[in-house]
Amino acid sequence: METWLTGLTPLSFLERSAAVFPDKTAVVYGRSELTYRELSDAVQQRARALRAAGVRPGDRVAYLMPNIPELLIATFAVPLAGAVLVAVNTRLAPEEVRYICDHSQARVLVADSVLAVALAPIAAHLSTVESIIIAADPEGPPAQGTIPNAVSLSELLAGAAADPAGEEAAPAWAVADEHATISINYTSGTTGRPKGVMYTHRGAYLNALGEVFHSRHDEHSVYLWTLPMFHCNGWCTAWALAAAGGTQVCLREVRGDTIWQLLDRHGVTHLNGAPTVVTAIMNAEQAHPVDRPLLVTTAGAPPSPTMIQQAEQMGLRLVHVYGLTESYGPYSVCQWQESWGAADQETRARLQARQGVGMIQAERLRVVRTNTDTDTGDGELVDVPADGVTMGEIVMRGNNVMKGYFRDEAATAAAFAGGWFHSGDLGVMHPDGYVELRDRAKDVVISGGENISTVEVEQAVVSHPAVLEAAVVGVPDDRWGERPKAFVILRPGHTATEVEILAHVRSRIAHYKAPRDVEFVTALPKTSTGKIRKFELREKEWTGHQRRVQG
Amino acid sequence: METWLTGLTPLSFLERSAAVFPDKTAVVYGRSELTYRELSDAVQQRARALRAAGVRPGDRVAYLMPNIPELLIATFAVPLAGAVLVAVNTRLAPEEVRYICDHSQARVLVADSVLAVALAPIAAHLSTVESIIIAADPEGPPAQGTIPNAVSLSELLAGAAADPAGEEAAPAWAVADEHATISINYTSGTTGRPKGVMYTHRGAYLNALGEVFHSRHDEHSVYLWTLPMFHCNGWCTAWALAAAGGTQVCLREVRGDTIWQLLDRHGVTHLNGAPTVVTAIMNAEQAHPVDRPLLVTTAGAPPSPTMIQQAEQMGLRLVHVYGLTESYGPYSVCQWQESWGAADQETRARLQARQGVGMIQAERLRVVRTNTDTDTGDGELVDVPADGVTMGEIVMRGNNVMKGYFRDEAATAAAFAGGWFHSGDLGVMHPDGYVELRDRAKDVVISGGENISTVEVEQAVVSHPAVLEAAVVGVPDDRWGERPKAFVILRPGHTATEVEILAHVRSRIAHYKAPRDVEFVTALPKTSTGKIRKFELREKEWTGHQRRVQG
Repeated sequence: METWLTGLTPLSFLERSAAVFPDKTAVVYGRSELTYRELSDAVQQRARALRAAGVRPGDRVAYLMPNIPELLIATFAVPLAGAVLVAVNTRLAPEEVRYICDHSQARVLVADSVLAVALAPIAAHLSTVESIIIAADPEGPPAQGTIPNAVSLSELLAGAAADPAGEEAAPAWAVADEHATISINYTSGTTGRPKGVMYTHRGAYLNALGEVFHSRHDEHSVYLWTLPMFHCNGWCTAWALAAAGGTQVCLREVRGDTIWQLLDRHGVTHLNGAPTVVTAIMNAEQAHPVDRPLLVTTAGAPPSPTMIQQAEQMGLRLVHVYGLTESYGPYSVCQWQESWGAADQETRARLQARQGVGMIQAERLRVVRTNTDTDTGDGELVDVPADGVTMGEIVMRGNNVMKGYFRDEAATAAAFAGGWFHSGDLGVMHPDGYVELRDRAKDVVISGGENISTVEVEQAVVSHPAVLEAAVVGVPDDRWGERPKAFVILRPGHTATEVEILAHVRSRIAHYKAPRDVEFVTALPKTSTGKIRKFELREKEWTGHQRRVQG
Repeated sequence: METWLTGLTPLSFLERSAAVFPDKTAVVYGRSELTYRELSDAVQQRARALRAAGVRPGDRVAYLMPNIPELLIATFAVPLAGAVLVAVNTRLAPEEVRYICDHSQARVLVADSVLAVALAPIAAHLSTVESIIIAADPEGPPAQGTIPNAVSLSELLAGAAADPAGEEAAPAWAVADEHATISINYTSGTTGRPKGVMYTHRGAYLNALGEVFHSRHDEHSVYLWTLPMFHCNGWCTAWALAAAGGTQVCLREVRGDTIWQLLDRHGVTHLNGAPTVVTAIMNAEQAHPVDRPLLVTTAGAPPSPTMIQQAEQMGLRLVHVYGLTESYGPYSVCQWQESWGAADQETRARLQARQGVGMIQAERLRVVRTNTDTDTGDGELVDVPADGVTMGEIVMRGNNVMKGYFRDEAATAAAFAGGWFHSGDLGVMHPDGYVELRDRAKDVVISGGENISTVEVEQAVVSHPAVLEAAVVGVPDDRWGERPKAFVILRPGHTATEVEILAHVRSRIAHYKAPRDVEFVTALPKTSTGKIRKFELREKEWTGHQRRVQG
């Protein structure tokens, strides 16, 4: 590369916006605001403070923090210090946090003062962390308890500010190697240890630009942080908004009442979240139709046609994207087609519920089977027919997939068998080139030798007007091995019997796919990002049975 | 780079849009249209035909063609064949075309059947061209004359189509090395031989994404080709539109009546052009206010405040960008600031006439002087104060500047002295970080030791209501060495005397900057991209004088 070329890094976006929009509001949180100049200053201060705390280029710095400005600042400050951000899921148990700190070999752990109490049991047992830094949240509730030997971020900042000279004074908004790791995001795998997914400066830059395009971000964007920042670095959205020069609204807790207050107060134009989050927002007590453009990007599970219809009626523009931690968050988008406008609402919603096509910066999606015949090419990836029926595994590659799993070459090699990243998701390719997710490989129900997509069954269940949310899992069946079972939350004020729901489902999908049982529940177990923990539902049902079909 | 990462190339944009928007209109020209599927097919056919004609990876392929679909297709087809596009300025003299073909060592020359007649004098004298291919334009006027031994593109395509098998059948929409050259664009230098500016796949990809952002392109964009495609590959706009999935409207000749017909017929949303082109459009007989969004991106010379006001009154949204052939076209943009809305119209227009800030994909702009003091750092670039007054040279670097001059290492090294590309343009840095061009280094007038920006003087002249266009150059002055002189075109139906214009100018700028002479003309000499050829104006004035100030 010529010396005058520069490496791709999302740091350049903040450098630019701080120069171009110095007095524009970059961050809002409660009663406090930061302009782009102030955000840039805060980022540089933290970078200097981290250096002063002993952080060296390539070191990992773990953060345990909700969606508050300090974590947003860290998304830039840690890479600006030349280090690697490890944003830890705030809902993990202390032992899980310890595992991630140890596995990532974090040198420093920065914790929110309110969440820090959860570190007490593990603080003395972290094998690589040399400093625990506690960041007070002036807008948050009072902290409880203290961590021995922890230092406060404010003291560290004061110390760094007192010594502004020298090499540490002005870290460069540039990278020597754009393939350097910018962050490690640990998967929320429901089985086994989480894996550390490495993002690069280049990948983060390109993904952010892709999101700017598909979400139509510009300097008028007001983005509400309903998606956890620790999840895929918030789908790279902090970087995308800095690129566009928009405003980011932080919030400590994702609650319906807070969300609607912020939506209305700040004229929010964009938010992201799993369908369960979007459902919660749309069904909050304070929910009301909006009369300004509000683009809601959803992923993590296919939005049900019912949800898409409801969003449309409320004036929300729903954009459905799909991806994994390994793909920097979104990789594909269900690109709207003009011709869909002529379809009836239900057909439209079905088309929109598909996972779609690769984003502008991504490669295409493929749906493949692996050819294991040693005569014709061992391990070759063969595309399934684009018939909307034949299931295969969804694979991806290009700049929008991770560099690899940190300290796990075997898992990296396995994930990239055949040169493409294996998502573990099963889907079909439609004749129009749109991919539709049928199931996580581990969630599919195999009944009498037939694959049943639990997603398809769930969509049939949720289309019943009395149903708010549903989850379908395979349960033991003496004859068929497994059969689908539905767990259902009814809408407040609505009633429906098991018989009514089953009759409705059978009117929409093949009988062999329909559940035989419906269990009415008031809540479903969910991950911190709003995905339903089907694993837990299955465990309960399979206790005492031998799992014959899948592990 | 990991094997599953992919090189950045604008080819991926067409591959994607052909998959996502197969039936959407990609190109319109006269009565003919191409969908994205058809465009993609046409591109692949040409790539195969070029391979069949002997083009090998890395070979240069020269094109002599107006803004018709065949050249738009070539913008993808030549790189798809692994080759390098050399789009030649259609207004050059045959000898100049010969020089470019020889210097670029083009193996193949593809010419429009109408323009091909200009090749007759040189066809037998091209030192590297093995095949001349003539492309008929079904929508164009009849061709005149023939070129001996030339082959027709249609025959070549028929031949390639008859042999669709084998390696040539499906060239990959991918590059092994993103730093490979995608095109060479020859400068229109008014002195000396043109230089071959090398663009890379990576640079073209990033510049295209930057234009998508700043021009707000999406699948609803309808772009009119008023900017020559041979000029910086049309500022990479063919690639940008393919990325966004928009429609490109071609036209053979850039004439006011044709333009307004196309603007109205196709609901054009975007066009690009030099200020002289925009002025011509706004003052065409058919001009009328527009009631839909029409974004006009202009560069090549600062738009006068007068022009900006006129555009505003007609409902055009004018975006002012700045760059050079060496920066893939636009590098900076005069980013609109909310606070400007409160200013009066004239102040607003002055702010908007500045060259602004680096685009989202570009690095910052610097305005520097070169420290030639050997004690303190020979050749070091020192930023001038951001005072809006001190002139320096505008320099750039990053992914949005060329790879270098083809076959001219000395010129490349000189252009990148100090690690930044030297634009040769003089400007000032304003306190708000916006750069304002004061002059081309070779156009500045040095009068009595004072630098006078001819751009500033021109803007003062053009602000007179009777003036349509003006050009200011330095003319000999016995006392001051040089003094500015204005060449003026009056608006149709308006009159003004020399005295009136000079009085108006003196009321707006310092007396020493004001011209002493005004010459009324009916036309100004211009380059094919609409830049005024000040060199010609100066030549006439300096004949018989010794140039004491500049060459």
